[in-house]
Amino acid sequence: MPEHTADIKVGIIMGSQSDWPTMKEAATLLDDLGVPYEAKIVSAHRTPDRLWSYGKSAADRGLQVIIAGAGGAAHLPGMVASKTRVPVVGVPVQTRALSGVDSLYSIVQMPKGFPVATMAIGAAGAANAGLMAAGILALQDADLAQRLDDWRAAISASIPEEPIDD
Amino acid sequence: MPEHTADIKVGIIMGSQSDWPTMKEAATLLDDLGVPYEAKIVSAHRTPDRLWSYGKSAADRGLQVIIAGAGGAAHLPGMVASKTRVPVVGVPVQTRALSGVDSLYSIVQMPKGFPVATMAIGAAGAANAGLMAAGILALQDADLAQRLDDWRAAISASIPEEPIDD
Amino acid sequence: MPEHTADIKVGIIMGSQSDWPTMKEAATLLDDLGVPYEAKIVSAHRTPDRLWSYGKSAADRGLQVIIAGAGGAAHLPGMVASKTRVPVVGVPVQTRALSGVDSLYSIVQMPKGFPVATMAIGAAGAANAGLMAAGILALQDADLAQRLDDWRAAISASIPEEPIDD
Amino acid sequence: MPEHTADIKVGIIMGSQSDWPTMKEAATLLDDLGVPYEAKIVSAHRTPDRLWSYGKSAADRGLQVIIAGAGGAAHLPGMVASKTRVPVVGVPVQTRALSGVDSLYSIVQMPKGFPVATMAIGAAGAANAGLMAAGILALQDADLAQRLDDWRAAISASIPEEPIDD
Amino acid sequence: MPEHTADIKVGIIMGSQSDWPTMKEAATLLDDLGVPYEAKIVSAHRTPDRLWSYGKSAADRGLQVIIAGAGGAAHLPGMVASKTRVPVVGVPVQTRALSGVDSLYSIVQMPKGFPVATMAIGAAGAANAGLMAAGILALQDADLAQRLDDWRAAISASIPEEPIDD
Amino acid sequence: MPEHTADIKVGIIMGSQSDWPTMKEAATLLDDLGVPYEAKIVSAHRTPDRLWSYGKSAADRGLQVIIAGAGGAAHLPGMVASKTRVPVVGVPVQTRALSGVDSLYSIVQMPKGFPVATMAIGAAGAANAGLMAAGILALQDADLAQRLDDWRAAISASIPEEPIDD
Amino acid sequence: MPEHTADIKVGIIMGSQSDWPTMKEAATLLDDLGVPYEAKIVSAHRTPDRLWSYGKSAADRGLQVIIAGAGGAAHLPGMVASKTRVPVVGVPVQTRALSGVDSLYSIVQMPKGFPVATMAIGAAGAANAGLMAAGILALQDADLAQRLDDWRAAISASIPEEPIDD
Amino acid sequence: MPEHTADIKVGIIMGSQSDWPTMKEAATLLDDLGVPYEAKIVSAHRTPDRLWSYGKSAADRGLQVIIAGAGGAAHLPGMVASKTRVPVVGVPVQTRALSGVDSLYSIVQMPKGFPVATMAIGAAGAANAGLMAAGILALQDADLAQRLDDWRAAISASIPEEPIDD
Repeated sequence: MPEHTADIKVGIIMGSQSDWPTMKEAATLLDDLGVPYEAKIVSAHRTPDRLWSYGKSAADRGLQVIIAGAGGAAHLPGMVASKTRVPVVGVPVQTRALSGVDSLYSIVQMPKGFPVATMAIGAAGAANAGLMAAGILALQDADLAQRLDDWRAAISASIPEEPIDD
Repeated sequence: MPEHTADIKVGIIMGSQSDWPTMKEAATLLDDLGVPYEAKIVSAHRTPDRLWSYGKSAADRGLQVIIAGAGGAAHLPGMVASKTRVPVVGVPVQTRALSGVDSLYSIVQMPKGFPVATMAIGAAGAANAGLMAAGILALQDADLAQRLDDWRAAISASIPEEPIDD
Repeated sequence: MPEHTADIKVGIIMGSQSDWPTMKEAATLLDDLGVPYEAKIVSAHRTPDRLWSYGKSAADRGLQVIIAGAGGAAHLPGMVASKTRVPVVGVPVQTRALSGVDSLYSIVQMPKGFPVATMAIGAAGAANAGLMAAGILALQDADLAQRLDDWRAAISASIPEEPIDD
Repeated sequence: MPEHTADIKVGIIMGSQSDWPTMKEAATLLDDLGVPYEAKIVSAHRTPDRLWSYGKSAADRGLQVIIAGAGGAAHLPGMVASKTRVPVVGVPVQTRALSGVDSLYSIVQMPKGFPVATMAIGAAGAANAGLMAAGILALQDADLAQRLDDWRAAISASIPEEPIDD
Repeated sequence: MPEHTADIKVGIIMGSQSDWPTMKEAATLLDDLGVPYEAKIVSAHRTPDRLWSYGKSAADRGLQVIIAGAGGAAHLPGMVASKTRVPVVGVPVQTRALSGVDSLYSIVQMPKGFPVATMAIGAAGAANAGLMAAGILALQDADLAQRLDDWRAAISASIPEEPIDD
Repeated sequence: MPEHTADIKVGIIMGSQSDWPTMKEAATLLDDLGVPYEAKIVSAHRTPDRLWSYGKSAADRGLQVIIAGAGGAAHLPGMVASKTRVPVVGVPVQTRALSGVDSLYSIVQMPKGFPVATMAIGAAGAANAGLMAAGILALQDADLAQRLDDWRAAISASIPEEPIDD
Repeated sequence: MPEHTADIKVGIIMGSQSDWPTMKEAATLLDDLGVPYEAKIVSAHRTPDRLWSYGKSAADRGLQVIIAGAGGAAHLPGMVASKTRVPVVGVPVQTRALSGVDSLYSIVQMPKGFPVATMAIGAAGAANAGLMAAGILALQDADLAQRLDDWRAAISASIPEEPIDD
Repeated sequence: MPEHTADIKVGIIMGSQSDWPTMKEAATLLDDLGVPYEAKIVSAHRTPDRLWSYGKSAADRGLQVIIAGAGGAAHLPGMVASKTRVPVVGVPVQTRALSGVDSLYSIVQMPKGFPVATMAIGAAGAANAGLMAAGILALQDADLAQRLDDWRAAISASIPEEPIDD
């Protein structure tokens, strides 16, 4: 994994394959905004060493934002944040019994020193993670800033004046 | 407010004076890391027009991160995020009846399109907001990246091996 | 939007088209009671300027009650309340992960100065928003007061003495 | 109680003496805005007949808004709402074990037919109940509308630009 | 309703027809134990006067236990308890948004003076309300006590030693 | 413990000495109403055999109501209910971390077959347990019924018309 | 039940047949790891004496771990723990109204003296109960330790590098 | 840290010095039962490498139980469990805003494969962690089993029959 991937500035990681239906909303957003990314499964518990090396090498590999999604005792975002200064955006995946409140608390309640930029529970949160990543990258990329402004203007423009019965 | 403040890249805003004891943890962190910032009271409900112009002018004024703290029906972070593409970091201030769960839900559960990078409830969250801001700025500032690495190394080094009875 | 709409005293606004199945319960109630209204989509985050002008012009346009429904980080009711003295009735729309507790807290926990008259989560709350609006208008409209009394008497009369097996 | 009290348009009722420290915030607000009111203890459980006659006579006595505060299994606001078409504003009083979540749910989750305009838990909610009552009365009273606008303008004007260390 | 119903010692009341699928579990249990009962719809909000007269006449009509089921802002059990010294058993009916936590809090958190014997949320709670009523009546009825003991012995005897795959 | 205690019809049991400040509210109520009782510490976990024999002998000893208070994983009320058909009234004692929500859920969510008549969390719930016990005994004791009616009338009569500033 | 079952060191017990679909995840795990076990229905409330003798005989029968699953007012794990020093692993079974939060609180919030090793709500928790039992037994069984290491290595190895669209 | 510590079979680790007042309850219990242990600060986020090596070396160092306490986004217990097959007992430390519900969910909701034996929130949970560790070690140590039986018998014997007024 530590090979240099010059253009990829965003890493999307998730605890398991079952998180992908949620997390691909982040990928879709980045696709829409023309931001290259990688998507990896990095399980905090099942592949702790993969998590370790992912976090450790993130800055050197040129990653500028890491989007990390997980559910339940969702340790992935916080543990990656403990291994790298690269900003980590956390997505609480919805869970069966506790609806993602467990994921949310496990991700957002980080102690002083190790912030995780937590998004809403579920798919909307994953999409917003993509937008947050783009917003961070746009600080150094005027073209991306313009595309982001356009995207925002487009969704604003898409709202009809009145609701429609179906 | 729309004057150009060349060196200030982080704006700390909060809903009321009573949020300052929490939010100054963000300020302290930024002071420690040598990041210039401004601190303003911008109430979503009491000064909506101030909020409007703050959000609208943020990018032009050169702000690169906005840290917004609020409690209860905490609309400030999300409403600023609706007015600017500049990344918004939200701090849920602890509340009397609901301990900040109201603040947390009001800040984190943003709809698709308008992410708020939500931190932990209370003072630890405010400190982490400062760190998150620094982490974002460090992407373009190698010196700050080094200072952030040093800060992180220092808190890691400060942990004793064994607990001490008092 | 700022045109004068002489007879319309109730504005129903909602954050998105997806809130309409809930919010049309308010519309149905107002139809039943013969109260003219308008129904608009006004998204706090996607169309903040529309929200601004809606709130600002509400009193001058002759609106006497605004019914505002939203889900998740439901900022619409509170933000409208910050822009107008016209009474705002808030409807927390049920959400996927948090069942509308997020909507409820975001709407009801308003700070001193900006009340939102919060209704129950979901469709019953929307219907009640219509009744609350009618109750407020009935203070100045004896005919409406009578229709409201009749409506209340009718639902009381509709309750059978004993439950029926199906 | 059924005597006619010509000028009093707002009734503040509460379940017990212990709710008064919370509920007098509503009274203070009405005093500030020059709105005459009465304040009564009407316990849903201990004085159900008092509640009955209060609700039944409210419209005839000329009450235009009833502010009802209660804690725990807070039945007062909803039961009054079942007895009168006069708009009822409910204030969930904070409780020891459940912090007022019990009060909030008991007040806000009313079934279709009987809305209670629910405010935030505790003192801020009580103050807002006063403001909501004033906002409703202001629909028919241009002077009060002006005083309410002035009150709102004053609290907006009172917000300093920057937080102050103490 | 105030006619004398000599043999009926248990009244099952519920807020609406929609509570009957839950509440008939109580009826079934009483049928199984040979306890005569009546089942009525008595809505706290829609038929407050029916509730009043039901509560007021309960003791004189010879009722010894009242089983009251309701959902949401579930005021029925507590309001009946305020009108009669006859023991009231409350059943929190499961709700759509809040799963019956609203019903539970509204029923169980009664203030000093007016107990409601609260059962579990939903159908199991309704069945248990029947058993609680039978247990209370069995204090004066040795035959019923025996039937209750037999019922309890039977369900204990019905438990197999080992789970069975299906 | 299995000695016959002819006049005592109510047993108050609790999980530990630390529950007594809460549970003596039940005792006080019974004292006020002239109902003899016993008060025992019976820990479900620390003295399971004492619990066993208490439950097993309850009916034969002439107990007609058992009031059981416990906190946290509050198994005492439910386990006693599994050992006797005598009605069990449960009091959730307030806890440090979870405020008694843990106690409430452990007591109220009993499976079909074994009802526990659950009261409010804390001291009000304990007092109400005493009243519920009295209400059950009053079904067979006209004098007690009168005393209970008097007690209820007295607290109703004690409510002043208006709140008093202190 | 008190017969000696030489090789069986793990007992899986559950409150009812309806818990088996959850609890057989524990059995499957133990099967996979070659750990013999017994599976029994032991209801805390319906078969308290079975629970008593199960707990009392556990150590003498050679059981080294008891896995106990239950839902709602889930008293089984804690009550067994009060009867034996053999480690008890508790599995909160998901419930209809409260999603297993009731089960979780009833199991985990044990008072000082009687620990229950609580697992996650539902099937994942049951599987983990099997693994926890194996981990405890592996302390004395090098072969099992090796099989457990292999199982852990296998699930780590099974994680693909990248998510797959379906 | 990887030195061999022949007699120490229990490791108590905690996320920070501030957890020690809670976690020393575990130490006290182990002292009382004559079980040697070590107590270390191992922060998941501040000293991830220390956590790594602690987990990795645990089995080889002869540790048989690891007691891990942490608060908030409490990743320590679960991350250690991902690095070792040695049983991990987790203690959710009470927190300021969320009372330890965040700690509890972060610790207990582990995914399949990596159980953490979760105890009650706070000091009682820490004491129970010591007892759970002793119970596990007692499976191989008849003397310790006896001491544990004695400890259990002593706390049972210490319960008075009746509560005492103070």
